[in-house]
Amino acid sequence: MSSKPIVGVVMGSDSDWPTMKEATEILDHFGVPYEKQVVSAHRTPDVMAEYGSLARERGLKVIIAGAGGAAHLPGMLAAYTTLPVIGVPVKTTALGGLDSLYSIVQMPNGVPVATVAIGKARNAGLLSVRMLSMNDSALADKLDDYHLSMADESIEKTKNLK
Amino acid sequence: MSSKPIVGVVMGSDSDWPTMKEATEILDHFGVPYEKQVVSAHRTPDVMAEYGSLARERGLKVIIAGAGGAAHLPGMLAAYTTLPVIGVPVKTTALGGLDSLYSIVQMPNGVPVATVAIGKARNAGLLSVRMLSMNDSALADKLDDYHLSMADESIEKTKNLK
Amino acid sequence: MSSKPIVGVVMGSDSDWPTMKEATEILDHFGVPYEKQVVSAHRTPDVMAEYGSLARERGLKVIIAGAGGAAHLPGMLAAYTTLPVIGVPVKTTALGGLDSLYSIVQMPNGVPVATVAIGKARNAGLLSVRMLSMNDSALADKLDDYHLSMADESIEKTKNLK
Amino acid sequence: MSSKPIVGVVMGSDSDWPTMKEATEILDHFGVPYEKQVVSAHRTPDVMAEYGSLARERGLKVIIAGAGGAAHLPGMLAAYTTLPVIGVPVKTTALGGLDSLYSIVQMPNGVPVATVAIGKARNAGLLSVRMLSMNDSALADKLDDYHLSMADESIEKTKNLK
Amino acid sequence: MSSKPIVGVVMGSDSDWPTMKEATEILDHFGVPYEKQVVSAHRTPDVMAEYGSLARERGLKVIIAGAGGAAHLPGMLAAYTTLPVIGVPVKTTALGGLDSLYSIVQMPNGVPVATVAIGKARNAGLLSVRMLSMNDSALADKLDDYHLSMADESIEKTKNLK
Amino acid sequence: MSSKPIVGVVMGSDSDWPTMKEATEILDHFGVPYEKQVVSAHRTPDVMAEYGSLARERGLKVIIAGAGGAAHLPGMLAAYTTLPVIGVPVKTTALGGLDSLYSIVQMPNGVPVATVAIGKARNAGLLSVRMLSMNDSALADKLDDYHLSMADESIEKTKNLK
Amino acid sequence: MSSKPIVGVVMGSDSDWPTMKEATEILDHFGVPYEKQVVSAHRTPDVMAEYGSLARERGLKVIIAGAGGAAHLPGMLAAYTTLPVIGVPVKTTALGGLDSLYSIVQMPNGVPVATVAIGKARNAGLLSVRMLSMNDSALADKLDDYHLSMADESIEKTKNLK
Amino acid sequence: MSSKPIVGVVMGSDSDWPTMKEATEILDHFGVPYEKQVVSAHRTPDVMAEYGSLARERGLKVIIAGAGGAAHLPGMLAAYTTLPVIGVPVKTTALGGLDSLYSIVQMPNGVPVATVAIGKARNAGLLSVRMLSMNDSALADKLDDYHLSMADESIEKTKNLK
Repeated sequence: MSSKPIVGVVMGSDSDWPTMKEATEILDHFGVPYEKQVVSAHRTPDVMAEYGSLARERGLKVIIAGAGGAAHLPGMLAAYTTLPVIGVPVKTTALGGLDSLYSIVQMPNGVPVATVAIGKARNAGLLSVRMLSMNDSALADKLDDYHLSMADESIEKTKNLK
Repeated sequence: MSSKPIVGVVMGSDSDWPTMKEATEILDHFGVPYEKQVVSAHRTPDVMAEYGSLARERGLKVIIAGAGGAAHLPGMLAAYTTLPVIGVPVKTTALGGLDSLYSIVQMPNGVPVATVAIGKARNAGLLSVRMLSMNDSALADKLDDYHLSMADESIEKTKNLK
Repeated sequence: MSSKPIVGVVMGSDSDWPTMKEATEILDHFGVPYEKQVVSAHRTPDVMAEYGSLARERGLKVIIAGAGGAAHLPGMLAAYTTLPVIGVPVKTTALGGLDSLYSIVQMPNGVPVATVAIGKARNAGLLSVRMLSMNDSALADKLDDYHLSMADESIEKTKNLK
Repeated sequence: MSSKPIVGVVMGSDSDWPTMKEATEILDHFGVPYEKQVVSAHRTPDVMAEYGSLARERGLKVIIAGAGGAAHLPGMLAAYTTLPVIGVPVKTTALGGLDSLYSIVQMPNGVPVATVAIGKARNAGLLSVRMLSMNDSALADKLDDYHLSMADESIEKTKNLK
Repeated sequence: MSSKPIVGVVMGSDSDWPTMKEATEILDHFGVPYEKQVVSAHRTPDVMAEYGSLARERGLKVIIAGAGGAAHLPGMLAAYTTLPVIGVPVKTTALGGLDSLYSIVQMPNGVPVATVAIGKARNAGLLSVRMLSMNDSALADKLDDYHLSMADESIEKTKNLK
Repeated sequence: MSSKPIVGVVMGSDSDWPTMKEATEILDHFGVPYEKQVVSAHRTPDVMAEYGSLARERGLKVIIAGAGGAAHLPGMLAAYTTLPVIGVPVKTTALGGLDSLYSIVQMPNGVPVATVAIGKARNAGLLSVRMLSMNDSALADKLDDYHLSMADESIEKTKNLK
Repeated sequence: MSSKPIVGVVMGSDSDWPTMKEATEILDHFGVPYEKQVVSAHRTPDVMAEYGSLARERGLKVIIAGAGGAAHLPGMLAAYTTLPVIGVPVKTTALGGLDSLYSIVQMPNGVPVATVAIGKARNAGLLSVRMLSMNDSALADKLDDYHLSMADESIEKTKNLK
Repeated sequence: MSSKPIVGVVMGSDSDWPTMKEATEILDHFGVPYEKQVVSAHRTPDVMAEYGSLARERGLKVIIAGAGGAAHLPGMLAAYTTLPVIGVPVKTTALGGLDSLYSIVQMPNGVPVATVAIGKARNAGLLSVRMLSMNDSALADKLDDYHLSMADESIEKTKNLK
């Protein structure tokens, strides 16, 4: 696996980074090369349009995009590329992230966004790895290991019930 | 008042037209020249970007944009222009338009959308007329007349309570 | 631009001021003269009625009104004036401001309120500037500058992702 | 009991009449004199203000007000009178009446509205009768009879379970 | 006005007291004699049934009942008495009090509860005073004074906007 | 198994019967003797109190209670008996049954209601059978058969995907 | 009563333990033998399947299962056993536990889960005791005592209203 | 491209087929071989477990799973396989599909589901094609064509605005 990024992790603002960092930790864990960038659909729409339009030819295979409130970044990127785009609804103070969730998941027919749980960027990382594993048996094996160790950890936790 | 459009009425799909038509009926009533167009943020992002970017130099003063579900059109247009953009959340079958409302109104700081009630494009038309009336006393007078006739009609309606 | 107020910033209570102050900061930034006042639809309905009724002849061009809970101030002002009224739903402890949002945005046909996101008074300020820029190219230029500097700041923020 | 109205039944539009009629049927049943009128907070704010302001001196003892969406009528009337105001949230197509409910019940401290269930104007009528019964033992007796006959009907309904 | 209680202030648990205390402060302010008691619909259903059943003959004119979650106290009291019952939905940690609100306000036809805003017991107190003022012009005058002083305070608050 | 009822199926109104009938169909299927009755917490509180209080000594082992809106019946029965009470939130027109669900499931500590899905009285029936099967191996066997036949039907349904 | 567990208390993660511990405290109070274990539907699906499948033959009579978010544990256990399964929706930070509630209570026909209030594991414990009391008069007596002491405590609490 | 299925389209019941059929129409359009099957997490948990466990070795690359209510199928399949699982929340009568959405999208860390809009199985199909296009340039080209024709159709729709 080369070091050229194959996953793009983008977010509307650096205030989303504490949430989105967990996606990059997963990618680090699985040795998946990635890039990370602030891309705002509303403040830098041209950067966003270019990011989406060039994603595939730049060698990206998946985009992970996080945003909060009227979160247009994931859906707009999905309009500019035909790569799979994973959307992470970032939690908001007023509505708990329900606004983010609706703005990301309720895409009209034609342009899907693969949405994960509110604030769960770790799962966005894992979902990108699952996608990459479709044609990468080494990665599929690593995912198996990851699941086995999750299971072991889960079983161990019964000890903590006291 | 010339016939060159000063209000742009756009919507994500022609299925939004039964809703959005009411905005144009108001503009007709007030003699405000307008144009209407299907502009999809997701299916024609470049058309959308161009529409927003050129709006002011093309002579538009207000944009009215309607969309449903993960409704990105109003907010994205507001990212491409500094004209006021009025958003109309279109009713949806699953969530009643709450998804549309959240996607339009909950814009992050920096890029506002003037949002009206779910499905109430008539109010979007009236809001654009209010904006235009800020520097157009004839239009302000027409709005006064409109309010007077609304009041008269309302008062008459007591007769129907039987 | 004279110092006579052209934007009225009003709110239901001084407890809304920490939220609404951001609207005035934007107006300061753009050099737009404004006034600010506590106007309660429920505790001072006559003050409110007079504020709306006289707004246009007093020289105001836009009203920004913030309120929380069963937030009637923006809609009632819009009933008393034909100027554009921008509503700011103030966050509430029980329902996160969803009650404020519904009370402001869901106006019946005939009387629109230009609603912005819950607690986002800064966007209310910007929306009023957009409206004023419709016939003020200097203000339009300032808005362009504002957007450029937002874009620059956004791009710089990628550095913080670590 | 004289025929001078002691309950005022008002609503924002005649489209609310099918809902609000049930309040008047209850008042008819209990022999409580009432008046009914379309009073729109948004289309006829002055009529509304006057209605509230004069209610007590005109001899009304309770006001029942129904409205839908951003339903300001009950709360605004309560701002203009110190009589008890009963609010009926009218069902809406987009949000099922949740917007009406929030706009009516979530009143700020100082100005209460006695809110009943969405669309349940019959209960608004009954609530006004309960209030009137506080100092009217004949009415209290009629309410007892009403409850007894409700109980009897309820018990009879077991027969229909087949 | 005698010292025999004419308003009953009850609540499901003493944990509701910080909320409900505000109702009693209003009653103190207006000199309305009241009693207060923990009455749990679920833990002491017989006490609750008796409280409701005897309320009128004990001389009460209004009941104010606060409860949270599946809040049955106000509605059940309204089933046992024909006096007006005012319900206060107490805020809950999981759902913000929306569960309390629905459980109190959505009463079926036949048995109304006069519901006020989530956590706003002060308004429950004021609503009871409004009801009592229907036949008590001294109390009506005190309410007028209360409204005047609210208006004055509101107007003074503009000074705090800095 | 004798024909003396061991499950009580009650509901707030006969309008709930189309929903609640499905519970009785399950009980018929499993040969569990039951009774059915309209019991209204609000219209016949004494009947309800007595129903709950005598349930165990009358030989009932489980109560299934359905109600809509501010649905107090299941919770109040659970206050009057220590038998398990299963609550069925009946669908409502305004809020889809969310009010019923909250009123039934969000019971305070001390008095639980076993709540099933909105409108799913069939599952209430099955849950009662599961409870009865705790000490009835014949019933447990019947439940196994029921699950096997559900599985078989489910597998057969693939044929219908065309 | 032997010490062989008859209630199984399981949860998706040890982070649910502070919530679920209250169920075990009730079981301790009533002297009901139980076991407790972390069982994750998603991380250890085979453990979960086996837990459900063997529950009855291992002597369990009731399962109490708590989980948060897309909470599948209670419903999946109910698919693998015909014993009654009690579901406890654990509170979540983003949506307050409404996601947990919907995932647990809205089970399709055929496979019920007895759902209690968000975070109210104590009630899950009490519900399991109610079920066990169906054929255990000693336990029924203890429940009566428990209710009596709840009533006494409730009545005492009026003292704290000051 | 061989005719051996590489996408598995599964659903909880044949009543989901009218929704899920749209996923298969997309797969037909893109010439992607697929299989379709009713797999119920609750009625046939073993079938479900086996389907997930064997998916990868049977040659599937993506699973599309639709379900309604407490929709556990997508998340449970994602627990049994490390392939990407796309979840389609099916609309429900009581809650509009919000229960389905929460049950599918709010997965805990470790086990992601790629969730699309309520009822939008067509987007699930397109998302699977996007995933497959990561390593299939022919499919990527077809997606480009699809987007181009969507754009063309969208532009044509302006004609219908009359």
